[in-house]
Amino acid sequence: MKFCSQCAAPVVAKVPLGDNRVRFVCESCQTIHYQNPKLVVGCLPVWQDRILLCKRAIEPRYGLWTLPAGFMENHETTEQAAMRETWEEAEAKVVNLQLYTVFSLPHISQVYFMFRAELPEPKFAPGSESLEVALFSEAEIPWDNIAFPVIKQTLNQYFLDKVANHFPVHVANVIKPFKEQCIHSVLSLP
Amino acid sequence: MKFCSQCAAPVVAKVPLGDNRVRFVCESCQTIHYQNPKLVVGCLPVWQDRILLCKRAIEPRYGLWTLPAGFMENHETTEQAAMRETWEEAEAKVVNLQLYTVFSLPHISQVYFMFRAELPEPKFAPGSESLEVALFSEAEIPWDNIAFPVIKQTLNQYFLDKVANHFPVHVANVIKPFKEQCIHSVLSLP
Repeated sequence: MKFCSQCAAPVVAKVPLGDNRVRFVCESCQTIHYQNPKLVVGCLPVWQDRILLCKRAIEPRYGLWTLPAGFMENHETTEQAAMRETWEEAEAKVVNLQLYTVFSLPHISQVYFMFRAELPEPKFAPGSESLEVALFSEAEIPWDNIAFPVIKQTLNQYFLDKVANHFPVHVANVIKPFKEQCIHSVLSLP
Repeated sequence: MKFCSQCAAPVVAKVPLGDNRVRFVCESCQTIHYQNPKLVVGCLPVWQDRILLCKRAIEPRYGLWTLPAGFMENHETTEQAAMRETWEEAEAKVVNLQLYTVFSLPHISQVYFMFRAELPEPKFAPGSESLEVALFSEAEIPWDNIAFPVIKQTLNQYFLDKVANHFPVHVANVIKPFKEQCIHSVLSLP
């Protein structure tokens, strides 16, 4: 962030009065520009004993397989976001959504939020962000070509929990080093 | 948003190519400024059969009681955010955090994320955003003076679940009308 989105004056990075973190602050109109983590919401769509995966038609991880998921939009619920992403990426309608995995990825300030969901019928097709969409049994899943670690962990956990037919909500974190440009925020922690 | 935070040119509200929602777009440097929901993360701190509540020293809802909670910051996990807020608002250290309630509030584009947590000892004090901090049994809770409906629902659910000593994760939504200034986003839904 270089300029104030309210008045176009240059912003400075500083700790506002009464705060304990570096923020982008406009010294002209006094607006404090807070930046917060984003929610990535998606589904693990199940049809009989198979899971619906999408082959990515976009970067990052073009050509690798993933569960339908994407950034939650303003003015929707988490379930609506999960259903919308499943429709946009796989042209599939899902029902009976149950929260399943929650992953914090602090190095990129994202929280993943994945629901188990039922595909009432095996109807799907690649959306504009997918090259291909298909159903996979556990043995058929392209385990070496999954786009994101949190998606692989969600799939692994699903097949573990399926043995006992018990699917509690799993909360976990993926801890990696921060990128250099983020370090000023870290140093400002109390 | 009026000006581009990258180049200070005025932004326009339009649907970018390949998108289906109105975004703030800079037609000078082509930056698309996405806006996404914020996570509000907090704790329900338990000491024996009592819950720790904070009396708000800030608006909105000055003087009403709430659980310690606030906006999740970049570069932290959900548990770290919940512990930080509990320290900032109640100067209390909590352990053994368990995800408990998740509420989507689409009218204000927020997702609440509340953890049950144990207070290992009854040590606490008002932080700068609290007038007072205290432990309450179910009968003592100031039910008519709770600051936010989702906090009241979390407290109600806790005492219901306590009867069976079983605390599953609850996912729910609070649906209210959008404010008028938000309607352009709603109309752009596919």
